[in-house]
Amino acid sequence: MENLTEKTVSKEQIYSGKIIDLYVEEVELPNKKIGKREIVKHPGAVAVLAVTEEGKILMVEQFRKPLEKTIVEIPAGKLEKGEDPLECAKRELLEETGYSCKKIESIGSFYTSPGFADELIHLYFTDSLINKGEQMTDEDEFVNVLEISIDEAKEMMKNQQIHDAKTVYGVLYMELNHANRK
Amino acid sequence: MENLTEKTVSKEQIYSGKIIDLYVEEVELPNKKIGKREIVKHPGAVAVLAVTEEGKILMVEQFRKPLEKTIVEIPAGKLEKGEDPLECAKRELLEETGYSCKKIESIGSFYTSPGFADELIHLYFTDSLINKGEQMTDEDEFVNVLEISIDEAKEMMKNQQIHDAKTVYGVLYMELNHANRK
Repeated sequence: MENLTEKTVSKEQIYSGKIIDLYVEEVELPNKKIGKREIVKHPGAVAVLAVTEEGKILMVEQFRKPLEKTIVEIPAGKLEKGEDPLECAKRELLEETGYSCKKIESIGSFYTSPGFADELIHLYFTDSLINKGEQMTDEDEFVNVLEISIDEAKEMMKNQQIHDAKTVYGVLYMELNHANRK
Repeated sequence: MENLTEKTVSKEQIYSGKIIDLYVEEVELPNKKIGKREIVKHPGAVAVLAVTEEGKILMVEQFRKPLEKTIVEIPAGKLEKGEDPLECAKRELLEETGYSCKKIESIGSFYTSPGFADELIHLYFTDSLINKGEQMTDEDEFVNVLEISIDEAKEMMKNQQIHDAKTVYGVLYMELNHANRK
């Protein structure tokens, strides 16, 4: 295999923010020429595929400023500094939906946009929800909780109400692994 | 349904780059308080799930500077200004793998990171590859082409060689829709 590594020649921090930082790096390409890479640093995130006793998926409806529209997503949130992803998943599930869970398991992780960002999403699955209480969202976070069947979710994918990577992955995962649940 | 819209109060452009721009916006939240949103603008992208006669998925091995590692992805690339996503899909397939195709169809689209970016990936499927020629990648793009079976792809997901949203989605899509092909 050809060595594809790009070595950093110089690195400039453009922005340091609440959620993301932005860097521009000059890199030495495999052919020894110099290229430019724009890199968004993100703390990483979790998402939870949480299924009710009735086999419905918990989702949250949320306005997403970058898209200037409201979409429906599985509960998710960014990692706090040093936070274990599994603990973060339980926290986000509780904060966004009011639910706790008895058991929760990892179903993988993926980078969202490896071309320009290092955001890694850790995905979890639970079907043992307990103790429905109140939402406890962050002060700048406003979400409506929904319970969606797989068939409804597939329909919402078609009409682009469900329209983001972690949620479409979650719907396919459910279809593949839990299609017998309705 | 509660109105979740966030109205822009002020908007500052932090960076204008080759691939992304960065804005910071002050928004009026649903409770009338002021919040801050960091927003990466991206032109959008395409990805192609391209399946050979033998039922193998075309993938490209590529160093991703934001991750500081090489991962294996389905062929993809960003939209040129005004470019039709379907034409872009055919172009990227040709440039990255050397293949053309007789037929190509849309299998949906998703936002990669709706919390901080507006990147939308359009996904296409083809199993009618023709005319294998030479790669014609961009001057700062270096990729190795691979042909991966579904079983190999699932194994590579486990050991995190396949580790990005569009590609794990593609593998699940194949498993769900074309599992009879080996």
